[in-house]
Amino acid sequence: MLTLYYAPDTCSLASHIALEEAGAAFALKHVDIVKREHQAQEYLTINPKGRVPALLTPRGVLTETPAMLAFVAQSYPAARLAPLDDAFAFAAVQAFNSYMCSTLHVAHAHRMRGDRWADDAAAVAAMQRKVPVTVGACYKLIESMFLKGPWVMGDTYTIADPYLFTFAQWLEDDGVVPAAVPRVIDHRHRMLERPAVRRAIAGELASANP
Amino acid sequence: MLTLYYAPDTCSLASHIALEEAGAAFALKHVDIVKREHQAQEYLTINPKGRVPALLTPRGVLTETPAMLAFVAQSYPAARLAPLDDAFAFAAVQAFNSYMCSTLHVAHAHRMRGDRWADDAAAVAAMQRKVPVTVGACYKLIESMFLKGPWVMGDTYTIADPYLFTFAQWLEDDGVVPAAVPRVIDHRHRMLERPAVRRAIAGELASANP
Repeated sequence: MLTLYYAPDTCSLASHIALEEAGAAFALKHVDIVKREHQAQEYLTINPKGRVPALLTPRGVLTETPAMLAFVAQSYPAARLAPLDDAFAFAAVQAFNSYMCSTLHVAHAHRMRGDRWADDAAAVAAMQRKVPVTVGACYKLIESMFLKGPWVMGDTYTIADPYLFTFAQWLEDDGVVPAAVPRVIDHRHRMLERPAVRRAIAGELASANP
Repeated sequence: MLTLYYAPDTCSLASHIALEEAGAAFALKHVDIVKREHQAQEYLTINPKGRVPALLTPRGVLTETPAMLAFVAQSYPAARLAPLDDAFAFAAVQAFNSYMCSTLHVAHAHRMRGDRWADDAAAVAAMQRKVPVTVGACYKLIESMFLKGPWVMGDTYTIADPYLFTFAQWLEDDGVVPAAVPRVIDHRHRMLERPAVRRAIAGELASANP
């Protein structure tokens, strides 16, 4: 049995969708970020980084979305969520996911989490002003090159899709004009038609608002 | 045949070491960042992100260090650079590497690349001031929890080791006091005793200064 520690409107949604797609048996555990539960000792014993997501497994805890997504794909091979027998194709999926975590997520985080990287308010405000540029540059590459269509890697749905979908929830708030990224918006719609995606979203709502 | 596009004193060293450890046949191609070759059209056709590293393979180009490291491990299984037959153990390696790229590298990048995330000089200076805190927080976790010793994952050398080693080159410049991270410093020494690490460093010096 697995337990996914998640918070609504965070990147934990990507792993949640992957678990649903895999048909995994898992429990959901809401970490209330407003109440700062992610920084409380109880959660820090699960994930000392004080971030969501974390995945409690019988072998121990896993963190970091790209690693968790690959773990789900490898643990449930029948769901065919990644090209497991092709090192190059698998690396291409992982390269996309690594770009998501290290570039797109980081660019996005400068909008609401600038105090991670600077202490004074003027600097945090300056970071916020640049978010449409930095996030927009990521989406320009995604729209024109990385998103092959209809799924990120082409004809086959993979663990890259829930990760892109998760960030694409926020693109308007990040200052990206939807009309500039029609293929990303199409992908977002396509994802919402998947039962696993709907189950994940509904599960988070129900769990966070019992 | 593989070609690694690299620049000295960048994170490309991690993939370079992994290729050496794997006994791979590869060519080195220096991308001169001082001459801004990483932003020139010739290189952008290889990697449209305009960053190093990139790995040209017979199947196409791979980017993003964590993906490239896993690719090397999977492509040269005899080198045993990752626990390829154990999804949990592989995910633990990947979680470490994902933390390297999305948290430690990002914290470090605010020292010299703050203009990625804000345009005004005062904000960039404010980011620089916080680097010892943010990078230091990463090393505190690495020193006390993530680096199991003697290698990152314990008794077995993996693709996590060259990645940590690469960043650990810069910890003094990032404002981290070596005496505060004796296990990381020991790891750095241990890495320098490996022939593959020495070959990678020597190869970069020779290639960049022909």
